[in-house]
Amino acid sequence: MSFGKIAVDWEERINLDRMRRERVERAKTACKKHGLEAALLLHNDNVRYVGGGDGVHMWHGVSGYRYALFFTEGETVLYEAGMRKNYMERALPWCKVEYAIPIMPYLATSTPEGVYEKQLEKFANQIKASLKEHKLSKEVLGIDTNSPAVINALKKVGIETSLKCSKAMMEARKIKTKDEVECLRMAAGIAEAIFSEFKKVIKPGVTEMQLRAIATYTAYMAGADWASAPDINSGPHTSQGMTIQCSDRAIRPGDLIAAALCNISYNGYKTCYYRTFSCGRPTEAQKDAYKKALDLLYSAINAIKPGATTKDIAEKWPRAQDMGSAKRPNEDAAVLMQWGHGIGLGLYETPVISRIWSLDFPEKLEPGMTIALETLWPTEEKSYEYPYGQAVRIEEMLHVTETGVEILSKWPVDEITVCEI
Amino acid sequence: MSFGKIAVDWEERINLDRMRRERVERAKTACKKHGLEAALLLHNDNVRYVGGGDGVHMWHGVSGYRYALFFTEGETVLYEAGMRKNYMERALPWCKVEYAIPIMPYLATSTPEGVYEKQLEKFANQIKASLKEHKLSKEVLGIDTNSPAVINALKKVGIETSLKCSKAMMEARKIKTKDEVECLRMAAGIAEAIFSEFKKVIKPGVTEMQLRAIATYTAYMAGADWASAPDINSGPHTSQGMTIQCSDRAIRPGDLIAAALCNISYNGYKTCYYRTFSCGRPTEAQKDAYKKALDLLYSAINAIKPGATTKDIAEKWPRAQDMGSAKRPNEDAAVLMQWGHGIGLGLYETPVISRIWSLDFPEKLEPGMTIALETLWPTEEKSYEYPYGQAVRIEEMLHVTETGVEILSKWPVDEITVCEI
Repeated sequence: MSFGKIAVDWEERINLDRMRRERVERAKTACKKHGLEAALLLHNDNVRYVGGGDGVHMWHGVSGYRYALFFTEGETVLYEAGMRKNYMERALPWCKVEYAIPIMPYLATSTPEGVYEKQLEKFANQIKASLKEHKLSKEVLGIDTNSPAVINALKKVGIETSLKCSKAMMEARKIKTKDEVECLRMAAGIAEAIFSEFKKVIKPGVTEMQLRAIATYTAYMAGADWASAPDINSGPHTSQGMTIQCSDRAIRPGDLIAAALCNISYNGYKTCYYRTFSCGRPTEAQKDAYKKALDLLYSAINAIKPGATTKDIAEKWPRAQDMGSAKRPNEDAAVLMQWGHGIGLGLYETPVISRIWSLDFPEKLEPGMTIALETLWPTEEKSYEYPYGQAVRIEEMLHVTETGVEILSKWPVDEITVCEI
Repeated sequence: MSFGKIAVDWEERINLDRMRRERVERAKTACKKHGLEAALLLHNDNVRYVGGGDGVHMWHGVSGYRYALFFTEGETVLYEAGMRKNYMERALPWCKVEYAIPIMPYLATSTPEGVYEKQLEKFANQIKASLKEHKLSKEVLGIDTNSPAVINALKKVGIETSLKCSKAMMEARKIKTKDEVECLRMAAGIAEAIFSEFKKVIKPGVTEMQLRAIATYTAYMAGADWASAPDINSGPHTSQGMTIQCSDRAIRPGDLIAAALCNISYNGYKTCYYRTFSCGRPTEAQKDAYKKALDLLYSAINAIKPGATTKDIAEKWPRAQDMGSAKRPNEDAAVLMQWGHGIGLGLYETPVISRIWSLDFPEKLEPGMTIALETLWPTEEKSYEYPYGQAVRIEEMLHVTETGVEILSKWPVDEITVCEI
């Protein structure tokens, strides 16, 4: 693989039915391991993992429009915003679908005193009734979100909750099934269509925002189900890192352009995939910075093998104080500069790799994990246009295998992508 | 107004300096009213309101990469992710900028036991030191996010917190300054560029996702600083509401297309602006549904005048049980169907209007509020293609004035926008 994206009867592509069944099995095993028979899932990624259906993108994380009760024995109950319920019953025949009680977090601050409390009371009674129906009213209910308001509302109706559920869901999700890995491969392929457009259109006068326009257009035309907002940093906006999301700054000859394609999503699975472009031929200093960032990236990738830990990766990266002119006083102040994270339905899944904690809290790398590793290095070439210099940013998406590593991202990485002027 | 978006010396456009100063004044007044001398702001919208600088879009709400200490007397301290600090010092000269301690919420579940606690401990000590420096170490610290982990970490170092800060910030933000209203006008104008493209390109075979591609492209080219992901529902996806975000469904003759342009952002200010299109000439049933949705929308708008309340609006809307074939068993199950909300830096600000609570908890409408009102009505015309029928969706953005209301949204609303085939 990878084959095409359209459903066809003449070639097995991503087997979505198998993917759904295997995800549910993984979630059941993880909940049982933590002694949970029922789990209240409020986080969109967890709801999608066990139930499917797309969430509401504008509310990442916990929307309060939809939630699910997941049982180690029995069918998942999906609670959906009223407008969506009828449709969801047809769309997701593997769930029981009920009307959600809206408990959107913003109600707590943008409505009068009493509104949020009243909503939570109705919600807690709804959950209580469902647990009773499942003969689980005396069990501890797993919950994946540390919301004091929700937890207290459940407590008031006699439901004891356990936050172990968050960890259980992360544990389930950290190992990807074959089809999940294929979804990530598809997402990476969409990002490559964007890089290919960038190589064509980057030239003096093009703005960062125009590149973002082209990026989201290309992503949706190539089959992304969400393209969020790619970050494009050019010239001084790359000063020792990525400083902004995107702006109307026009690119000039001599600029580096760091293109960060996060959250380009295929069937819910996200990219985190960066490349650096140059407007015109790069200088020796720019090439040197690139070589250093590449060395940091591949020394980390080469450290991945069965039995290795996140510490083995983090040790390949320099101390915050030793990053040339991009140096920082301590590791906290160098967050994201050399960085790694699990990737799947969520942009950040287990393991999250940083010198801030991975040296002291190592985690074992396991076959089936999918990880994105990102590195950065400054150019050291300063001027009036670039008072802090520029920086190079690269990231690869990879799949830990039984014997080592498969790189999911295929855009040429050996040197800066040059956009001739 | 509105004039252009580029900074020019020959015409006063949005006065961003005045906007920033007036926002800070409003926040100071609100904090003082609630007895707060210092406020820890973790929510991106609040940080932007008092400090400026763009947040990290992929983490709505509380990112844990940046936060601010806001003082009723003294300069705001902005804590920024390391990579951004140097740049932010130059970009935001009205703030003192420090390195943030990363306390990203996902650390709680996707890192080993102990990591999140250690990060929060460093963070709490940093905040404590700053309060001491400002001679406020004995005061109650306002906080805008009900995070038990953060609140406990602060408590451990002796800082007592008050969640009144959330309300105070919402109160400050609910009345918009002249320049904020102009930002919303600009955002509405960008959405109109998208509707104009839709009118041209909607025809049989075009997919919802292709419309989304065109929408984000058009928004960024027209000056949006974020275009999230417009929701496009066509044909059966509009069954009695909006059921999905967007898909690869191809549009067919006879379809209604509900285009929901939320979160198209200009200088941080968001749209919530919906229109309905038809692929070919609409049927009488479609026109009837549109007329009903329009009546609901404008009877609500006409109820807005000084002294009116959110109850006066909600009363214009039908009971959940009385919405034709889109009827719902109760008001919770009809959430969003007839709906209103304040709009500004946040998509949902004060007041949030719904029959779920506004009849029992009325709020006074005030000059300077900016509100989006959205209505929905089903067509009642069912078939094999549309087993639940279709639905019409319309939304206007408006500005409450001293005497009544100004409609910020200008795309023709009197009938379905017809896309000839």
